Amino acid sequence: MCDELSQSWTWIEGGVGAPQGFQATGVKAEVKYKDKYDIALIYSNVPAQAAGVFTRNQVKAHPLVLTQKFLENGVAQAIVANSGNANACVGEAGDRAAMEMAETAASKLGIKVEDVLVASTGVIGVEMPVERVKKGIEDAAEVIKDGQAEPVWTSLEKSDNAHQAALAIMTTDTAVKEFACELPCQGGVIRLGGIAKGSGMIHPNMGTMLGFITTDAKLSAVQLQELLRQAADQSFNMVTVDGDTSTNDMVLFLANGESGITPAGKEWVQFKEMVNSLCIRLAQEIARDGEGATKFLEVKVTGAKTLGDARKLAKSICGSSLVKTAMYGEDANWGRILAAAGYAEAQFDPSQAAIYIGDCLVARNGQGVHFSEEAAKEVLAQKEIGITLMLKDGEDKATAWGCDLTHEYVTINGDYRT
Amino acid sequence: MCDELSQSWTWIEGGVGAPQGFQATGVKAEVKYKDKYDIALIYSNVPAQAAGVFTRNQVKAHPLVLTQKFLENGVAQAIVANSGNANACVGEAGDRAAMEMAETAASKLGIKVEDVLVASTGVIGVEMPVERVKKGIEDAAEVIKDGQAEPVWTSLEKSDNAHQAALAIMTTDTAVKEFACELPCQGGVIRLGGIAKGSGMIHPNMGTMLGFITTDAKLSAVQLQELLRQAADQSFNMVTVDGDTSTNDMVLFLANGESGITPAGKEWVQFKEMVNSLCIRLAQEIARDGEGATKFLEVKVTGAKTLGDARKLAKSICGSSLVKTAMYGEDANWGRILAAAGYAEAQFDPSQAAIYIGDCLVARNGQGVHFSEEAAKEVLAQKEIGITLMLKDGEDKATAWGCDLTHEYVTINGDYRT
Repeated sequence: MCDELSQSWTWIEGGVGAPQGFQATGVKAEVKYKDKYDIALIYSNVPAQAAGVFTRNQVKAHPLVLTQKFLENGVAQAIVANSGNANACVGEAGDRAAMEMAETAASKLGIKVEDVLVASTGVIGVEMPVERVKKGIEDAAEVIKDGQAEPVWTSLEKSDNAHQAALAIMTTDTAVKEFACELPCQGGVIRLGGIAKGSGMIHPNMGTMLGFITTDAKLSAVQLQELLRQAADQSFNMVTVDGDTSTNDMVLFLANGESGITPAGKEWVQFKEMVNSLCIRLAQEIARDGEGATKFLEVKVTGAKTLGDARKLAKSICGSSLVKTAMYGEDANWGRILAAAGYAEAQFDPSQAAIYIGDCLVARNGQGVHFSEEAAKEVLAQKEIGITLMLKDGEDKATAWGCDLTHEYVTINGDYRT
Repeated sequence: MCDELSQSWTWIEGGVGAPQGFQATGVKAEVKYKDKYDIALIYSNVPAQAAGVFTRNQVKAHPLVLTQKFLENGVAQAIVANSGNANACVGEAGDRAAMEMAETAASKLGIKVEDVLVASTGVIGVEMPVERVKKGIEDAAEVIKDGQAEPVWTSLEKSDNAHQAALAIMTTDTAVKEFACELPCQGGVIRLGGIAKGSGMIHPNMGTMLGFITTDAKLSAVQLQELLRQAADQSFNMVTVDGDTSTNDMVLFLANGESGITPAGKEWVQFKEMVNSLCIRLAQEIARDGEGATKFLEVKVTGAKTLGDARKLAKSICGSSLVKTAMYGEDANWGRILAAAGYAEAQFDPSQAAIYIGDCLVARNGQGVHFSEEAAKEVLAQKEIGITLMLKDGEDKATAWGCDLTHEYVTINGDYRT
């Protein structure tokens, strides 16, 4: 609550279109399905400083390789993304398709091809329907050039183009992940917007996670990269067990400086807090929307020796199939929680560990305590379950987010490609 | 086939009771269930050289800690094990219970307490029903002292005590895992026997794996430890994704020298091969009996740069939830296979990789090839599915074993403790 009271910024509407000088839209190009938004285009009126974090998977999708190359100079003006096809593992045709996506957007928008970042999500190993994708990008660019996407967030009833961009990157997601916020500063207002997709996150080895963040703050690419890296470490990277390991994962961050404000001093602290909060909220929504999930899990670790240990422990618990199935079964099986901590490859003293499920103390000093099964049942019956591992090894803490492992997850992933 | 032809040893009956001078039995002590064998006792007529490999989990069960201590001198004469209770995370009562198990066996058998190794498997965090367990151990020791367990393997119809030991360590296992073999040597015959349990291995973070191996070969504890370590690395450690990470996992190896033979030269090579084969066969049975499994997976990686890389790649593919669900759904989703290799943290060149599912080539040079969905369906409909990743990075290879991830797995683990 203290954090809330001292919070200087507010949530607003508008998604990635909220910051000044940004427009975004989505179109239906039939990449894989009929009548689904599947091409997203985000555009800045002026070249923006740009940063990105990417999958650590050694197998990298074609658009990801291109985007990493285009990002080398720290400048971009547009992001084009599609769902319905990952454009991964299809050889030279994939490289060509990614480049053609950038070229099409660049030529229609009248900007440099290397200022267009490209992202894809969907099935691996299937060639892109390039002509339909190009047509879709042309249509999207048309909307933006016509200024139809500006003002970007008229009302929920009217054409909300930025919202369509959020829809266009969804795959098995069941909910749109879109937030925006603004920070009043001495020189005016800085706005921040973000969208994300990602749903195959119960065992997040491959469920592609995409995130696109925009701001009108005036920052250098170096500042932006550092800001994104630290935000990703405590948000997107805390919903994934093995790091960002899909072939396509990426989070891109554009700052076009259109607010004219470079946050400094206290304003920098607040801005950073706002960026972290937006990333955490997007990350939480990804966990909440895990494939087949019926419950949202929040795992907190306190009293850890180092921040690294705290993060490893929280992620290990949150990622354990046996913890996830226990939560699905509403079973206060704390032994699985402690065992998942035990194999996290983090330093801690199990004999000093206490475990809470919700507000029920279930283990102390590394061993079980008598607790009310009634009270535990009540906690476990909720849609959102908190697990806390309290250690006495130091002062560091971390939080990870996830969801339960369900029959529906197996159903979804046992029959995804076909 | 070449390997088969040159194989100098043969599979025989008898489990851990097959080697000379060993006896084993199991009794029903109602540790958790009525009418289930749940106490196993393995005994050598003379003190044996002993070796062990243990879980890397930082949370260690009480019997495991005791057994590690007792093993320091490399000598043991008996192994006592129970199913139905892990004797883990219950504080001092757990340490006492483990010690009492050793003391009871030692006193009844008339051997040193530190020569009794103790193992447990079952639910974590529940105190042992010590009196029932002690009574069970006394009964088992009685059988052995009376010589009832010797000859240990009379026939399948009669009382097969060694077989009861194999039954007694089972938990959610649906099949007994028990093998024995013998190697003719110049000086006579060396026999080897082994039993194992383990079934929660689909996501093997916690499904306890126990293995007990006996031989009448004459070996030093140091030789035995090295032999076990290298055998475990290519067998038991290849059915687990994160290494042996339950709180209770252990494999113990006793050599009592009763054959009078110390295998050397060619016989040593053959003996080592026999040990490896027995361990691999036990490991395969564990994978085959994975909780809720409908299919057995064998993942081979060839052409890897190093042995370490080959093992990491094979285990990563075999452990991927998305690969496992695809196999369950009989879906030739090779993109998931390549992506799982990609996040294995092993060095390889994806653009040179070929993937076979059974004998169907599904990807080459890191990208998909046109393959007959019919032929793939036929392979995937089998109970046993082979996946091969062929690389061009070097000469090393490895094989991992696992099973599919099914609705039944979620059912079992969503409702285990209650």
